[in-house]
Amino acid sequence: MSATATTWEPRTDRWEQVVRDVFAQQAALELVGAELGAVEPGMVEVILQRTPKVTQQHGTVHGGIIGMLADTAAALAALTVAPAGMIGVTVEYKLNLLAAATGDQVVARGRLVRAGRPLSVAACDVFAVSDGVELLVATALVTLAGSRGR
Amino acid sequence: MSATATTWEPRTDRWEQVVRDVFAQQAALELVGAELGAVEPGMVEVILQRTPKVTQQHGTVHGGIIGMLADTAAALAALTVAPAGMIGVTVEYKLNLLAAATGDQVVARGRLVRAGRPLSVAACDVFAVSDGVELLVATALVTLAGSRGR
Amino acid sequence: MSATATTWEPRTDRWEQVVRDVFAQQAALELVGAELGAVEPGMVEVILQRTPKVTQQHGTVHGGIIGMLADTAAALAALTVAPAGMIGVTVEYKLNLLAAATGDQVVARGRLVRAGRPLSVAACDVFAVSDGVELLVATALVTLAGSRGR
Amino acid sequence: MSATATTWEPRTDRWEQVVRDVFAQQAALELVGAELGAVEPGMVEVILQRTPKVTQQHGTVHGGIIGMLADTAAALAALTVAPAGMIGVTVEYKLNLLAAATGDQVVARGRLVRAGRPLSVAACDVFAVSDGVELLVATALVTLAGSRGR
Repeated sequence: MSATATTWEPRTDRWEQVVRDVFAQQAALELVGAELGAVEPGMVEVILQRTPKVTQQHGTVHGGIIGMLADTAAALAALTVAPAGMIGVTVEYKLNLLAAATGDQVVARGRLVRAGRPLSVAACDVFAVSDGVELLVATALVTLAGSRGR
Repeated sequence: MSATATTWEPRTDRWEQVVRDVFAQQAALELVGAELGAVEPGMVEVILQRTPKVTQQHGTVHGGIIGMLADTAAALAALTVAPAGMIGVTVEYKLNLLAAATGDQVVARGRLVRAGRPLSVAACDVFAVSDGVELLVATALVTLAGSRGR
Repeated sequence: MSATATTWEPRTDRWEQVVRDVFAQQAALELVGAELGAVEPGMVEVILQRTPKVTQQHGTVHGGIIGMLADTAAALAALTVAPAGMIGVTVEYKLNLLAAATGDQVVARGRLVRAGRPLSVAACDVFAVSDGVELLVATALVTLAGSRGR
Repeated sequence: MSATATTWEPRTDRWEQVVRDVFAQQAALELVGAELGAVEPGMVEVILQRTPKVTQQHGTVHGGIIGMLADTAAALAALTVAPAGMIGVTVEYKLNLLAAATGDQVVARGRLVRAGRPLSVAACDVFAVSDGVELLVATALVTLAGSRGR
């Protein structure tokens, strides 16, 4: 959330594969149709096509689904720099819904703010994308605790 | 969240039907398998069976799904006392995950804390239920804005 | 925040004195004029007289001061059941301001929701008191991490 | 909080004076010793010298004071682009404390994320400054409601 861009360094060779593995193991993400986008040290995107099944009564993406994407992208952003064998478990998250999520798809872009022991903090901005134009529809802050084993 | 129990009075005759209608219109809730439980003035339960499709990598209910249930139960709790033709749209929510959601099912119990114009606030405790015993697994605070039309 | 009342057991003989000592060591609390109220296992009150110095432009107690009281009451509620030599450091808090804090004084009533290792969660309701009548003016959720030493 | 920098346009000629007036009217800010720093459209700094009176038991700035600065800087950032006669009242805020606030002073830098009617959202990063070097010690998200009159 800081204006200052921070550069993060992965601590294992397998960091990207670990992110992809953890993502793939979560049935709930498959259920809603979430996909991984860009995966970089300290930054992970989670993408969702706006299909009818993920909407609420007005045809926009359900706020709870938005929160799920934000939580996931933030946790994975923290995971990119985790020590071997450690994973970040969500302690709490707070989400502000800023605009209705219309458009073709939604992109949740998680960014690590602080990598800590035992706690990390990540932020996530969520955008609705229509014809390549991004509109900020939500923003979140997520606290994560390091946990051993996957 | 107050220890003091507040009694809420519905403001329309159709309040319960409105809650059931709004719930039924949300495709995302059907997707994850959420069901309505008790519906009372100022209190609504949303129930989810712990099936494999709603889990994360450890087999417990995904934190994002927990947030979705909490947001929904809180919003519906506010809806029970909304004026005719008004609905509460989630402005923001904050969720603390307290324990892994194992057990047979999860119950999110939303409680209205303040019914306001233009803003309402509701709390939600989420319990994992095993053989009828409830364990508190998450707690949330939700801010809602009144919006015209459904 | 759970409707279910939980009973908490102190883990040291000196728990109440520890709460009073930690409170007394915080210069910022003395600056604003905060005082300790009831101190029970899992529940601590922090009280503030509404004097002009703690107000914002409308003469009501500043929202930032309300947050400070809520954070403190919640942290002390967790401290009542902490192991010897441990203190809860605030990881994050979230405060909803529900009504203007007028009245003679403000009481922040912190309640432990979950005592954990390494994390605890406490809630706090803040009331404005006029002629003995309490009005809920804010509610908070606070996450605390155990830390060694005081 | 978005990585995308947004440019904000004041809607009155007196916007900067309004910010300074509202700040000056808050006795609680004078009590803790807060001062205004930079004031720009969509961005306001609030600065606090780390004197003993604003500390907790470890000599670092009290987390409640940090929250007060963050809330204030965020609200003032929203005020820079408010219509004439309107002010943003804090609905809720969430603060993550990331590191102990040591150093000579603390700077809370509020940034408007969304200017809305009726609600605005602002973020705030808080830095401890030692010999001109800034360390991120807290980050906050704040929801504000427009209110008529000052």
